[in-house]
Amino acid sequence: MSAKTGTRVQGTVWGVGLGPGDPDLMSVRADRLIRGARHLAYFRKAGRMGRARQIVDGMLPDTVSEVPMDYPMTTEIPFSDPRYVAALSGFYADCTTRLRRLAEAGEDVVVLCEGDPFFYGSFMHLYTRLKPVVPVRVVPAITGMSAAWTATGLPVTWGDDVLSVVMGTLPEEALSTHMAQADALVVMKVGQNLGKVRRALQAAGKYDAAWLVEYASMPQQTVQRLCETEAETAPYFSIVVVHGQGRRP
Amino acid sequence: MSAKTGTRVQGTVWGVGLGPGDPDLMSVRADRLIRGARHLAYFRKAGRMGRARQIVDGMLPDTVSEVPMDYPMTTEIPFSDPRYVAALSGFYADCTTRLRRLAEAGEDVVVLCEGDPFFYGSFMHLYTRLKPVVPVRVVPAITGMSAAWTATGLPVTWGDDVLSVVMGTLPEEALSTHMAQADALVVMKVGQNLGKVRRALQAAGKYDAAWLVEYASMPQQTVQRLCETEAETAPYFSIVVVHGQGRRP
Repeated sequence: MSAKTGTRVQGTVWGVGLGPGDPDLMSVRADRLIRGARHLAYFRKAGRMGRARQIVDGMLPDTVSEVPMDYPMTTEIPFSDPRYVAALSGFYADCTTRLRRLAEAGEDVVVLCEGDPFFYGSFMHLYTRLKPVVPVRVVPAITGMSAAWTATGLPVTWGDDVLSVVMGTLPEEALSTHMAQADALVVMKVGQNLGKVRRALQAAGKYDAAWLVEYASMPQQTVQRLCETEAETAPYFSIVVVHGQGRRP
Repeated sequence: MSAKTGTRVQGTVWGVGLGPGDPDLMSVRADRLIRGARHLAYFRKAGRMGRARQIVDGMLPDTVSEVPMDYPMTTEIPFSDPRYVAALSGFYADCTTRLRRLAEAGEDVVVLCEGDPFFYGSFMHLYTRLKPVVPVRVVPAITGMSAAWTATGLPVTWGDDVLSVVMGTLPEEALSTHMAQADALVVMKVGQNLGKVRRALQAAGKYDAAWLVEYASMPQQTVQRLCETEAETAPYFSIVVVHGQGRRP
């Protein structure tokens, strides 16, 4: 897939959603693009393989050229800290330059994206920078939250239930307000915020109905009622689900 | 895949999510299950092929045995009408009996589900009835809303944006209240409710930011700013998207 701009044929940067983690839940299109990739880019924490890269292990052609993009920090700095924004902003600009050069040299690049690229993904920080200059295409994917509610064995929304998706990083009061107003609920970025998420769910009257799903769709998946657990933290990719109770013929 | 209960080996009923409509966006697992299906069940309006069945056309083995499940009505009766509940309830009970008999005879059955089965799907009405009596498994899928926001070419949620998913079937005031409180927004079941959805978006101050996506991921896909259209109705599978504006390093 390439686009002609002036006299130069540019390659395409593909933002390919990997889905929740089980390679069998990748789309047919993602599977084909990854198995045929010539350049494969992915985010990772410095010194780690990276979860995205791990998911596609065993699918890659021998000839693939890898483009790891190492995050500038491994511990979490609060979003509000100006150092956070500055460091990430410079990092995304560097990544953009690397991918742009490949595309301008006529090469297609597959960028691995955990989950669905346009849904709270990191790829969009590259997408918005690349889109004005080279061809970019996005392949949607099964979200982590779909895998999480499927893992609970209960439908998440019925009839005209309202579903709200909130991040555990929000202030406790904002969390409980949104939680109280929705019928069905997904809480992401639970990790270090689990204690706060518990309190907000209690304030919203939804604590007893909440489930905690860790590593949805992966071999180490666990599914528990939140009130039957005691931890104050959870793995970063944990998701809390509250099912809607809508109309059921 | 079969489970032994007493002396009888039961088949499994698979609720297989097809995703938004493009067969290339099905999961690898869904693709494999459908291509290998022995019994294939799907909902349809009487006299129609049915959209689910249409999506898999060309993927089926010659030997497949089809189990069409014809909805008892083709026009919309309001949810609140007791005839609606009674008719659907009897219909789902009949479908359950058909699928249960196959599973009890040791046969695996693939049930085609548009979108993601546990997300506002019809399959869950069979799921809750079948689960106590025969083995049932669910394969999640890319939601129609993922395909819709991907089609707009803009990421839907950033940072700690709150996303709410609301149905166009809700009363106008409830719609506008939920719309005003969310950062990013998805409206499904737009169809006949497009006029009401427009007014609710205006009341919530989000009308100018709204996009209308029809037939996301399908050949006839259209993507427009809602304010640049004038229709009072849209195809049933239309989705309205309002993008969040969260933190962007």
